[in-house]
Amino acid sequence: MPARGDHDARREDVSEAVWRVLAAHGFSGLTLRAVATEMGASTGLVTHYFPNKKALVRYAVRLADERTQARARRRPERPGLVALRAALLDVLPLGPDAVTMNRMWVGFWGAALADPALHEGEAARYANWRARLLPHVVEAQRRGELDSAAGSEDLVAIAASFTHGLVVQVLFDPENFPPERQISLLDSFLDGFSGGAGSHGRVAPRAPR
Amino acid sequence: MPARGDHDARREDVSEAVWRVLAAHGFSGLTLRAVATEMGASTGLVTHYFPNKKALVRYAVRLADERTQARARRRPERPGLVALRAALLDVLPLGPDAVTMNRMWVGFWGAALADPALHEGEAARYANWRARLLPHVVEAQRRGELDSAAGSEDLVAIAASFTHGLVVQVLFDPENFPPERQISLLDSFLDGFSGGAGSHGRVAPRAPR
Repeated sequence: MPARGDHDARREDVSEAVWRVLAAHGFSGLTLRAVATEMGASTGLVTHYFPNKKALVRYAVRLADERTQARARRRPERPGLVALRAALLDVLPLGPDAVTMNRMWVGFWGAALADPALHEGEAARYANWRARLLPHVVEAQRRGELDSAAGSEDLVAIAASFTHGLVVQVLFDPENFPPERQISLLDSFLDGFSGGAGSHGRVAPRAPR
Repeated sequence: MPARGDHDARREDVSEAVWRVLAAHGFSGLTLRAVATEMGASTGLVTHYFPNKKALVRYAVRLADERTQARARRRPERPGLVALRAALLDVLPLGPDAVTMNRMWVGFWGAALADPALHEGEAARYANWRARLLPHVVEAQRRGELDSAAGSEDLVAIAASFTHGLVVQVLFDPENFPPERQISLLDSFLDGFSGGAGSHGRVAPRAPR
C-alpha cells in the first residue's frame, strides 16, 4: 500500500493524464486505456483509481467542473451588463484551456443524452448556469442596459443559447472564429438587446438609476 | 445472393432500424449490435451492410442529412425575415422527429470533434447551413426587417449559434422548453435584431423597398 502522500500525488498525476487525454482526443476518446497510455502506466494502475469507465467519466466531469470554477475570471465590480458579458466571455473557447474544456463538454453531451443519470446531472448544470446569469440580466434590465421587452428568464436562456451555439461553431471552425471575432460576435449579440445603447463593457455604462 | 429488390427492401429495413436506435439511444448508442437487436437479426446480417462502426456512422449521418432535407418545411414565398424564421424553426426540436434528429446531431458532435474526417464533414455542413441562411439575412437587412449594424455574415453566425444552443438546452430540459416557449424565444431573439419593429412572421412585414 503506498503512503497517503504518494496516493494523493498519484491521484493528481491521474487527473493531469485525464485532462491531457480530453485535450487530445475529446470526451469520446476518454478510456481507461488512453489514460494509462498517457501516464505510461498499466491499465491496472488506472483501474486502481477508476474501477470502470463510468467512474472515469464521473471523475472527468467533476474535474472539468472544478477547472471551470478555477478559471472563471474575477468578476468585475460593475454589475449588470458588464458582469453578464464577463460571464459569457468566461465560457467562450478563447484560449487553449477553454478549448479543451469546451471540447470536453460538447463531447460529453452525447454521452449525457444517452444516460439518464448523466442527463439529469447536465440538466442541473444548465439550470445552475442560467441561475448564475439571471442576477446579471435582472440588474442590466433594471439599469436600462438591456431591453425589458423579453422577460429576464427568457433573456438568460437566449444568452446561454447564443453562447453555447457559438462554442460549437468555433470548435468545428476555429480559423473562421478567432478569439477577436468571438468577442465581436458576443458584443453584436448583446447590442441587439441593449436597445442600441451599446452600453456594455466596451463603453462606459449608464449610471445606475 | 438475395435478388436486387430484396436487397433494397432489406436496406430500407436497416435504415429504419438505424433510425430507431438513434431515437432510443442517441448517437453514442449506435452500434452494429444495437442495430442487429433492433432488427431482430444477427450482427452478421448487419455487417453485410456495414463492415464496421465507421461505415455505420457514415451511413447514419447521410440518413440524418436526407431526413433533414425531407422534413424542411416548404419555404414560405415571402423572403427575408419570414424565410429566416422558417429556416430556424425547421431546426428546433419542436416534435418527435426533430428531437431524434437533434439528439443524433448533438451526439455526433463529440465523435466528429475526435475524428479528423468527421470533423471536416461537420465543419463543411456548418458552412453550408450558414450559406443557406445568408440570403435570408441579406434580404431581411435590405428590407429593413433586421438591423444592419452587424454584418450579414455575423448575423448569420449569431442566429445559427442561438438556434443550436437552444437545441442543446431543449434536449436536456424539455419540460422547461416546450415547443411554444422555443418559438417565443426564437421570436424574442429575432426581435432583438429587428430594431424593435417586430416585423417577422407574427405580424405583417414591411413592404419591400
